[in-house]
Amino acid sequence: MSRWQPNARERLADAALELFVEQGFASTTVPEITARAGLTTRTFFRHFADKREVLFDSGDSLPALARRIIAEAPPELSPIAVIAGGLDTVASEQFGGDIEHFRTRRAVIHADESLRERELRKMSALSEAISHGFRQRGLDELRATLVAHVTATVFSVAIGRWLDEDKPAPLSELLHDTLAVLRSVLDDLDASGSKAQARADSR
Amino acid sequence: MSRWQPNARERLADAALELFVEQGFASTTVPEITARAGLTTRTFFRHFADKREVLFDSGDSLPALARRIIAEAPPELSPIAVIAGGLDTVASEQFGGDIEHFRTRRAVIHADESLRERELRKMSALSEAISHGFRQRGLDELRATLVAHVTATVFSVAIGRWLDEDKPAPLSELLHDTLAVLRSVLDDLDASGSKAQARADSR
Repeated sequence: MSRWQPNARERLADAALELFVEQGFASTTVPEITARAGLTTRTFFRHFADKREVLFDSGDSLPALARRIIAEAPPELSPIAVIAGGLDTVASEQFGGDIEHFRTRRAVIHADESLRERELRKMSALSEAISHGFRQRGLDELRATLVAHVTATVFSVAIGRWLDEDKPAPLSELLHDTLAVLRSVLDDLDASGSKAQARADSR
Repeated sequence: MSRWQPNARERLADAALELFVEQGFASTTVPEITARAGLTTRTFFRHFADKREVLFDSGDSLPALARRIIAEAPPELSPIAVIAGGLDTVASEQFGGDIEHFRTRRAVIHADESLRERELRKMSALSEAISHGFRQRGLDELRATLVAHVTATVFSVAIGRWLDEDKPAPLSELLHDTLAVLRSVLDDLDASGSKAQARADSR
C-alpha cells in the first residue's frame, strides 16, 4: 500500500499543523487531519501513535543523534568540547527544514498547556540521553548531569532566538554564540569576586 | 472557623503525602485525605485548589522568594554573584524542614507522569521569575534567560544530590558545590582548546 502514498508522513504532518493553527490543537481530530491530507486514518496510525506525536516526531530522534555524536567524539575531548563540536551537526540534521515549519510548530505548542508540558518532557529525554552518553565515556554522574543540563539550555535558548528574530543568523551560529554567552555569564562570578578582593586589598 | 483547626494546612499535607505513598497519587481522593486528617473537605479546599497542589505548594513560593532576593541584591553584583549570594537563603527558607518529607514528596512525584510534568512546569515558573528579576535590573534578555536556566539547573541538581545521598551535606553546601562544578565543566572548553593549541604549536 505505502508505495501509492508518497510522502504520506509529511503530508499528514503538514495537514495536521495547518489544522492545529486554524482551529486549535485540542479541537482537531485525526479524521479531519487525514481528510485534509487525502489519506486514511489507518495510514495516519501507521505513522503516528496519536495527533500529539505529529508535533514531537523530530524531537524523538534528537536523543539518538546526541548519543551518536557523544559516542563518536574523540576520547581526549572534554565534555563541553564534545558538545560544542556537535552543535553544527544537530543544527543541520534536525533543523535543516523550513524555519516557518518550526515557527508554526512552536506556536501550536505554546497555545496548549499539555503540549508545553510534553515539550519539557522531551527536553528532559534529550538531557537523559546526553548524561548517559557521557557516563559511558567515564564521566562522573554529577558532571554528566550538568553537561546535559547546559546543553539543553543552549539548545532551547538558541532555538528561541532563531525562531524569534526577523532575520535570524543561522542556527549553528546562534548555538555557538549562546554557549559563549553562557560561559561569560558564569565567568562573571570571578570578575565580581576579584573586584571585591581588590576592594578588600586596597583597604 | 480556622482558629479551631490549628495546623490544618500541615495536617492535610501530611495526610495526603501518607496516602499518596500508600495507595498512589491517582487513586487517592480528597475525602480520603480529609478523613485521615480529621478535617472537612471544605477546609481542604480553603487551603488547596486540588490534591495536586498539596505537592506543589512550597514550589509556588519559590519564585516570589527569588524575585525578592534579586530585587534586594546590591546593584554592583554580577547576576551570577547575586545567585550565589542567594543560595543559602533559599536553602534555609524553602528547604529547612525534615529531609524525609522532601524525599517522600519526590518519590510521589516521580511515580506519576502528570506530576513529573507539573514539576517541570514549576521549575519553568521559577526560571521565568529569575529572568524577569534580572531584566528589571537592566540585564539584556539573553543573559537574563541564561542566568535563570543556570539557576534552575543548580537547584534541581543540588536538591537531587541532597535527597539521594545517605548522609548528605547541608543543602546550602551542595548548592555552592554544584555551581562550582558547573563552572569548571564549562571552563574545560578552554582547557581543551589550549591543549589543542599547544599540540598545534609544538608541531
